[in-house]
Amino acid sequence: MSSTPGSRRIYRKPIPFSRVVEIIEKYFKLEPKGVECVPLSEAVNRVLAEDVHAMYSYPPFDRALYDGYALISDDIVSAYEDSPIKLSLKGRISAGEEPKVELKRGECCEVATGAPIPYPADVVVPIEYSKEVDNSVYIYRRFNKGFGIQYACTDCVKGEVVAKRGTLLTPLLIGTLASVGITEVKVYIKPTIGIIAIGNELIEPGKALKRWKVYESNSLMVRSFLRDLGFEAHYLGLIEDRYEDLRALLDRALTKFDVVMTIGGTSAGYEDIVYRVLENYEPGIIVHGLKIKPGSPTIIAVARDKLIIGLPGFPLSCFLVLHLIVKEILCKMTGLPQEKRELYGTLLKNVGGTLGYVRLVPALIKREGSTFYAYPIHLHSGFLLKASLCDGFVLVPEDRELITRGERVKIILTDFKDSDLIFIGSHCPLTERLLLELHREGIRVKYLFTGSMSGVVAIKDGFADIAGMHIYSPRSDSYNRDLLEDIGIRDIVLIRGYDREQGFILRKGLGGLVNSFTDIVNLKLRFINRNKGSGTRALVDYLISKEAEKRGMDPDQLKASIRGYNVEVSTHESIALAIVEGRADVGVGIRYVADEYGLDFTRIKYEHYDFLVRRAFMKSKAFKLFNRLLTEYLKNIIGEFRGYRIPDDLGEVVYEV
Amino acid sequence: MSSTPGSRRIYRKPIPFSRVVEIIEKYFKLEPKGVECVPLSEAVNRVLAEDVHAMYSYPPFDRALYDGYALISDDIVSAYEDSPIKLSLKGRISAGEEPKVELKRGECCEVATGAPIPYPADVVVPIEYSKEVDNSVYIYRRFNKGFGIQYACTDCVKGEVVAKRGTLLTPLLIGTLASVGITEVKVYIKPTIGIIAIGNELIEPGKALKRWKVYESNSLMVRSFLRDLGFEAHYLGLIEDRYEDLRALLDRALTKFDVVMTIGGTSAGYEDIVYRVLENYEPGIIVHGLKIKPGSPTIIAVARDKLIIGLPGFPLSCFLVLHLIVKEILCKMTGLPQEKRELYGTLLKNVGGTLGYVRLVPALIKREGSTFYAYPIHLHSGFLLKASLCDGFVLVPEDRELITRGERVKIILTDFKDSDLIFIGSHCPLTERLLLELHREGIRVKYLFTGSMSGVVAIKDGFADIAGMHIYSPRSDSYNRDLLEDIGIRDIVLIRGYDREQGFILRKGLGGLVNSFTDIVNLKLRFINRNKGSGTRALVDYLISKEAEKRGMDPDQLKASIRGYNVEVSTHESIALAIVEGRADVGVGIRYVADEYGLDFTRIKYEHYDFLVRRAFMKSKAFKLFNRLLTEYLKNIIGEFRGYRIPDDLGEVVYEV
Repeated sequence: MSSTPGSRRIYRKPIPFSRVVEIIEKYFKLEPKGVECVPLSEAVNRVLAEDVHAMYSYPPFDRALYDGYALISDDIVSAYEDSPIKLSLKGRISAGEEPKVELKRGECCEVATGAPIPYPADVVVPIEYSKEVDNSVYIYRRFNKGFGIQYACTDCVKGEVVAKRGTLLTPLLIGTLASVGITEVKVYIKPTIGIIAIGNELIEPGKALKRWKVYESNSLMVRSFLRDLGFEAHYLGLIEDRYEDLRALLDRALTKFDVVMTIGGTSAGYEDIVYRVLENYEPGIIVHGLKIKPGSPTIIAVARDKLIIGLPGFPLSCFLVLHLIVKEILCKMTGLPQEKRELYGTLLKNVGGTLGYVRLVPALIKREGSTFYAYPIHLHSGFLLKASLCDGFVLVPEDRELITRGERVKIILTDFKDSDLIFIGSHCPLTERLLLELHREGIRVKYLFTGSMSGVVAIKDGFADIAGMHIYSPRSDSYNRDLLEDIGIRDIVLIRGYDREQGFILRKGLGGLVNSFTDIVNLKLRFINRNKGSGTRALVDYLISKEAEKRGMDPDQLKASIRGYNVEVSTHESIALAIVEGRADVGVGIRYVADEYGLDFTRIKYEHYDFLVRRAFMKSKAFKLFNRLLTEYLKNIIGEFRGYRIPDDLGEVVYEV
Repeated sequence: MSSTPGSRRIYRKPIPFSRVVEIIEKYFKLEPKGVECVPLSEAVNRVLAEDVHAMYSYPPFDRALYDGYALISDDIVSAYEDSPIKLSLKGRISAGEEPKVELKRGECCEVATGAPIPYPADVVVPIEYSKEVDNSVYIYRRFNKGFGIQYACTDCVKGEVVAKRGTLLTPLLIGTLASVGITEVKVYIKPTIGIIAIGNELIEPGKALKRWKVYESNSLMVRSFLRDLGFEAHYLGLIEDRYEDLRALLDRALTKFDVVMTIGGTSAGYEDIVYRVLENYEPGIIVHGLKIKPGSPTIIAVARDKLIIGLPGFPLSCFLVLHLIVKEILCKMTGLPQEKRELYGTLLKNVGGTLGYVRLVPALIKREGSTFYAYPIHLHSGFLLKASLCDGFVLVPEDRELITRGERVKIILTDFKDSDLIFIGSHCPLTERLLLELHREGIRVKYLFTGSMSGVVAIKDGFADIAGMHIYSPRSDSYNRDLLEDIGIRDIVLIRGYDREQGFILRKGLGGLVNSFTDIVNLKLRFINRNKGSGTRALVDYLISKEAEKRGMDPDQLKASIRGYNVEVSTHESIALAIVEGRADVGVGIRYVADEYGLDFTRIKYEHYDFLVRRAFMKSKAFKLFNRLLTEYLKNIIGEFRGYRIPDDLGEVVYEV
């Protein structure tokens, strides 16, 4: 990136995200805008704007810690279970009652928990160690002076600072304040926040999704994020990429809100308007670009003594900027002390960085004892669902091009949950159903559908427990085993799953006309291919080479004659979608998907979808239940899944090492 | 506790807290009472009551991940910085715009981030690696097929389960749901909760505190706790310990709420009404007593298909039962998966347990790297402020009588904050002022006033950074040094602090009449003593033995002639309070306190209040600032503190080892 031959505007001075606050504070003081008085009942999670002094000491008098008998400790020094001391009972004191009794040696007084201690008693013997008979009490154990009594003022002294300015009001602290006579507190006012979504490509949720558009989901995420932090943000609407519209809306918003956040339109493309609008304020843009990935297209501006934060439009980028930047800014504006709740874990898979940029890589996290293990999932900023299924992010510092397996890494947890079973592998609706059922049975299942190979690798790396895979090997015309042998994985068991019908997915009306690639060429159909490395692609290339062989051709020659052979997508569903949308006529995939999209289908063969299991995991309760579902429950539901069948060896071990 | 000679009712069958849920579920199903539909904008932190399937795939079309040029990757295999490839520009596609362009070899099309990819482009070159001149574009780097493109459906496929039933709706997940076309979700209804406070000894906050009463602070704490968890609880009022009142209020509450919590009145004393009221319902009490300390007086009952939780009245007990029991019950009733966010740390001080009971000991926590260190503070259930200043609780299992320093312990964090300086020691208003000023200067200070000795021990244990101490040694008629030598502490520095005027605190009108213990005896005054182990007690006993010596008496003889010599309290303020309240006429303490309570005072001597510092801490920025405040700022404020003076050697090292 050092040389930049482009003539276009790029982020002019991206800065490290750790410097954002310092730069903002040159133009805009990140501090509370004022103080308000709230009753204690409304004060939880607010921040104190004053030191609070106790109005009363606590406890306000010497009180009993137990239900029992107040007495003079010297009277019971020789009390034992087999030689109790007999005292005469001089009365009872309830909690809240004045202690009118005054004890002499040899006397005692019953007290309730919280009751005042009568003079000059110096011990309270809990009721369990006593026996009352008529007007006498037998004491069965000695207790030292002071036992069972909480003396006045020992917890808190009148005038003492009970809570300092800047303290977050927790439930226990609120109870404490009430106990020392406080009924309301001065807290910092929260900043008011307005949100504007920007983009021609956006459709408001609830309306029908048009072609080439996506839903405007970010404002909901941002508002939810802010609400979770304790802020109510006002959504000011979705506007198109028009200078005048944004300028007018911002002008209005700046009169009403302390902070205005825009979402989208912050990258450096030829039509981005946020930059153009913000540069016309005074002082205007103060941060243009951050050295983080994702999240770099972030703009911060100051106008009319208000702060404007331009968030990136890709949801994951937007989310990370909320976590890394916005949270800190708003905490400072609310007077909250900055918490650096950093967490470290052991990396289970190499992860690359970008020199000069902090990279944030979505990761699954598992915990063993108190050690966290991070398993990065390589997802770019366009991924959202898969990122939301992750537990957090691994942070790759700006001076590292690579962090290797085994290293200690900083982790940002966003939604960590402990799990009993981690599944990574190829997406299959039937397996998804099994995992959901497992979840329903109380097994905490974490799953991610990122393809067969990524599942195998996650098992090899010692992270996943089960991987779902269907990788065809032309070498032995079989599934999965060859690959496992080739990569030399150990301590695993391959369990036979089910079969899925694979074949040509065809534009409606082509059913019956296409049985081979030769047919595709002859009919001049537009083919759409799968990505290299996928099981389906391996099958495609194997079929082409067999047909070429039969016809005495070079396979590359046949490939070259297939229109669209080089156009690749990476899921069964993308194949179907391309055909539905008229971008292609034929592809290879499973019948279930062809049916779902209302397309025609010609079977090529049944493929095996099997389960690779980490051997150590087989002892777990979670595996036993999974196995039961596979071998029993599966039979009940497979009828709902067209194009699937159960083989005779379902659930059997077909390979282990 | 195995033998219980008492005839009174005690908790009949205390059970381990881990069994509470299991026992409740025999009578009352802990599950959501229903389902409601909410818009996504209101759904954060709610729990899904259904599996949510994607209505649209995501992304819905192949889209650009960068601002740049879409092109055919085969065209740029030989592109390098010094030999760019020139392509002809065939148009531009904005985000949201239909891709009308169809590319041929040698052509490219400008695309904005998020824009659709024109057919058959298979790579997007980011703008930084290009240069546009007239109608041509130079590409300066090769990129592989697929780079810069997110293919349709790769994140999420239409129909796929995006979020499972029982999932907590996080901000990122809400954004994800909006992106795949979801606008509202079915979530579990939250249980409704009513709260009743019980106790003759209680006064509603806001009213004047009467003698022998305490404020009803628990309902505020409970409501704050529940609100923090996301529940709104209804406060039904404070009632006295009368059977009929509680029964009537409960009867009404049971018609309105799913869960009713009572606070107080749950111990086994002779007047506790909660037990008597609840045993008259059907099935009535199902848990009476928990094997936890504090928190054992907890009652759970079921009546009219509603759950009643009787919380203990001591605030700390109440708080722990909320944390350990109520939270789990309410989470189950809201469908939330149970999170076992257990944390482990290294114990820095022995802590005792009670066989058969789980003990929870308040602790300060500090973190070094990712290791937590727990420092238990011995506070019984009557302490509230000091417990609220702690970071959490150390859990002592029921099968341990002792856990020793260095062992790994389970920690329940309630309000952990990182700190730059930990101060433990004797309470002194002047030191408190210094620490508050330090806090204001940005140093994260954690402090706890639990006495001189506990500060010294906390330094010796390697936990505290600074301890405030004033321990008199008759041996050398000096302060602090002898003790430090005697206990053999190392790697510490004792820094000279200031002097506090100590003397006889006297009932108004006695000023001038009392100059010695002989005067006290002669005037037949009621003395109030300090606890053994306190610095002041050491001074008292030293003075008595000197006076006895002068008079040729045995010191014990003189002690015996002092009325109230055996009555002990443990703070300066408790001495003053006892005199104000007429329970005593004279005690020993500092002038500042005598003044605060409007009492007379006769000086005995100035005592030294010094600062013990962990040597390793002296290099820190926090210590440097503390030292500057001590030697400079102190001079500005000492005038506000009567009875204090600055010695010549303020801030000097007076002892180190």
